[in-house]
This record gives sequence, structure tokens and C-alpha cells, in this order.
Amino acid sequence: MLSSCVLSIGKEIISGIINDTNSFYIASRLSAFGIYNRYIVSLDDIKDEIEDGMLHYLDRVDILITTGGLGPTFDDITLFSVASALNKKLIFSKNAYNHIKQFYDSLYKTGKIKSNEMNDKRKKMAYLPENAIELYNSTGAAFGAYINEKGKRIFCLPGIPKEMKPMFDNEVLPIIKQLSTGVTISKTYEFSINDETLLGQFIDKIKNSDVYIKSLPTGFDSKSMGVRFTASGNNEFECLKKIELAKNRLADAINGNV
Amino acid sequence: MLSSCVLSIGKEIISGIINDTNSFYIASRLSAFGIYNRYIVSLDDIKDEIEDGMLHYLDRVDILITTGGLGPTFDDITLFSVASALNKKLIFSKNAYNHIKQFYDSLYKTGKIKSNEMNDKRKKMAYLPENAIELYNSTGAAFGAYINEKGKRIFCLPGIPKEMKPMFDNEVLPIIKQLSTGVTISKTYEFSINDETLLGQFIDKIKNSDVYIKSLPTGFDSKSMGVRFTASGNNEFECLKKIELAKNRLADAINGNV
Repeated sequence: MLSSCVLSIGKEIISGIINDTNSFYIASRLSAFGIYNRYIVSLDDIKDEIEDGMLHYLDRVDILITTGGLGPTFDDITLFSVASALNKKLIFSKNAYNHIKQFYDSLYKTGKIKSNEMNDKRKKMAYLPENAIELYNSTGAAFGAYINEKGKRIFCLPGIPKEMKPMFDNEVLPIIKQLSTGVTISKTYEFSINDETLLGQFIDKIKNSDVYIKSLPTGFDSKSMGVRFTASGNNEFECLKKIELAKNRLADAINGNV
Repeated sequence: MLSSCVLSIGKEIISGIINDTNSFYIASRLSAFGIYNRYIVSLDDIKDEIEDGMLHYLDRVDILITTGGLGPTFDDITLFSVASALNKKLIFSKNAYNHIKQFYDSLYKTGKIKSNEMNDKRKKMAYLPENAIELYNSTGAAFGAYINEKGKRIFCLPGIPKEMKPMFDNEVLPIIKQLSTGVTISKTYEFSINDETLLGQFIDKIKNSDVYIKSLPTGFDSKSMGVRFTASGNNEFECLKKIELAKNRLADAINGNV
């Protein structure tokens, strides 16, 4: 099973100004497609921090996905830092340049901005790490980048959710699906027990490595509790069978039949 | 300025089943009280992962706050892992034991649970790392722990938000306030400019290390854009003065007066 890390970059996230919903979105998609997402990490938009974090987690996972820091401003330094960490140069992309130009031209023509000149801030977004595959941005100016570095996959995505999500779904997910050999499914069932310290003993009795079983306590005012079963396998059917088996065994244990 | 890391522990977070709102809450509080929160990290409830993450970030920050994994079930292993990372034992706490006993006694007396026996799962929560200060849990069974390890501060909090928040506010924040020497304030103002590539040039002109200036683009259908100014200082007034100055300088730059 391939593993991954989501690295979200930006002062606004680590300082608690913005709640990072990107990582949650990406992690849930990766999991559904059979990737073991091992880490979600948020750090500052500082070159040394990005390099340090990237190298630390590239050592530990197969797939690294960054969000944030692709835009035009001074603190948008993700591609610069990623390239530096991998000893790569940033290379001018004619494709990206044309996309950016079109993007601002179209805003200019509809009167939404005052100038369509390709200023330095706009040009900056046309530079991608060498040998990167461009990831198309259907809703914004900045392209993303996909790098295959000695078998480790690195995807750099924008931080604005309305740009990140379509780029992830349309550009990244098809590649992930090719890489992944399986799927992961979670199902939650309700059991007539409200005490995690009792339920925990039954789970201990029947748990095995096939299915991850997690109690979801909602408090003692309720008479029951949800239990989430998560299984990975080659296909949906295989996962559902494993979950069904574990669910029945837990029910038997609670009813005193194990 | 002291720095911190929030470490949220749990499979449900890294796999995108639950959106981690705890880290956001803690990060925003730490920032308001003048701590530079450098990292938010989520990882699996596996002993080696917790140890590895803890030691990596303890090297980099002054304050480490963990959430999650204090409860009764098999995957609640935070205190065990934290103690192991610091070469400490887990020690039985009579205080914690009495609190847990009272907690279940009271549920038993009101008919909410079937047994008040102190089973192994309940007893487990009475063990804290040696030399830890107990953090009182006003809404749940499991105490938190505060460890001062050679000047590095480690706080272990529950993962359930309704337990974590009062413990953070009532038990952790008073200690943080003692440690911190300042405050940090952010204010956002609207400017009549909708293009980050133009605004970015003005920000470059006037920015200095006193105030962090961040444009908040909302798209080109709007004629204006928010700009967030963040300043740290010894007190609120000092921060507000720095922000006021930067705001006026940016307005002057946009109006062609710089």
C-alpha cells in the first residue's frame, strides 16, 4: 500500500487564522483510493521550513502533496523551495506563460482589471521546477507541478480551495488511481452500548489486522454508540466483506457469543 | 518569541474522516497570546509515529501540545508513547484514579451505564508520565498531562473537542500566559484593488519585519480586496500602532504617494 503526506503551506494556517480544509479534502480522497495517508503537516511559508519538512516526509512516504504558495506574492515560494530541496532549477514554461497571459487578458477584456501587462508577479507563476509535469489550473492563473523524483511522487497544488479541488480531482486523481492497487472503505454501525471502556474490551477480543475498528463515543446520555470499521482491499466488494465479518463478530461478542 | 507545535494524533484525522478542528483552535489561541505556532502536524496512533514526530518537533520548538489518544481504548496510546520518547515511566496517579472512579460512579448512579467497576480500560487512564503535572478534565474521565522536560514544555490533551477546549482554556492557557512575553494581533482592512499581482508590488515596496502583510484575494468580480496585517509586540497597543502605520503606508503606496 502506498503512503502519502499532505503538506499545507502558509502562515495563515499555522497561526490559526484559516482552518485548513484542503488537507482534509485531499486526505479523504487519497484514503478512498487506497493510499495510506500517514501525515498532514502545516508549516510556514519560509524556504528553510518547506525544504526541511519536504525532505523529512519524502523519506517516509511515497507521495507528497503540497498545497499553497503558488501565487504571485512575495510569500508564494513553494515551487522555488521544492526545486531547491531537490537541487532543481526553476524553468520558464511557455505553456504556463500563455495560460497566465490568457487568464489576465480575459479579465482585462471584461473590465475586471486595469492592465493586462505581464508584470513580474504574473511572469513569476510561469516558472516550474525542471522536469515537472504541468498541472492545469481551470479556475486560476498558477499551474501546479508534478514531479517524479526517483519514484517519489510530488504534487504541488494551489492553496485556494476553488483552484485546488478541480486540480486535484482532474489532474492528480487520475495519476493516483494508476499508482494505487486498491481501495479503502469505512462503514459505521450503531451498537447498543454507550460505554467505551466496555466496548473496548469486546473490540480487543475480536480485532485483527484486516479491519480497523474505532468506537465513536457520543456521551453517556445516549444508549448506543457508533463504531467505524475500515478495511482496505483490491476492490470494494473485498472491503465490504471484511467489514461485514468484523461487524458480525463484534455483535456476537457484545451479545456474549464469543 | 516562544515557538510551538500542535501534534494531533489519530487515524481518523490523517485519513480524512474527521476534520481536525482542535489544532485550529489551539493554534489561534497560542498566536493570540504571543506564541509563534510553527507547525500543525497530524499523525497515526502508532507508538513509533508518535515518538518520531515528538522528538522531531521537540528539537524545533519550545512548546509541544498533543491532542488525542488519552482515552480507554487500545489505540489511545499517547501518554505511553510520550513517556517512552522521553525515557519516562507511566506512574499510577491516585488523584486521576479518584477522578475516573467518581466520573463512572456518577454515571452509574444516574443509570447511564451498567457498571461502575474500575475495569482495566478505566484504570489505564490513571497512569501518567512520571513527574507530569495533572491537567484536570472537567468534562471527561481522562486527565491531561503537563511535562517540563529540560525547559521544553509538553502538554497532552484529549481529542474530544468538548474535553479539549475547557482543558486548554482553564489548565494550559494560564501556564502559556506566564511563559509568553507578548501578544500578536491581526487586523484586516479593505483596499480598492482586486489584483494581487499589482497589490503585491505595493506590498513589496513598503513591507518590513514589523508587520506581516497578506493579501486575501476574493476573485476578480470584486473591486476590492482584504489585506491582513499581523504584528507582535509587548502589548495590544504596540501591535495596533505598528498595524496602523503599515496600513497607512500601503494606502499611500496604492495612491501613488510612496
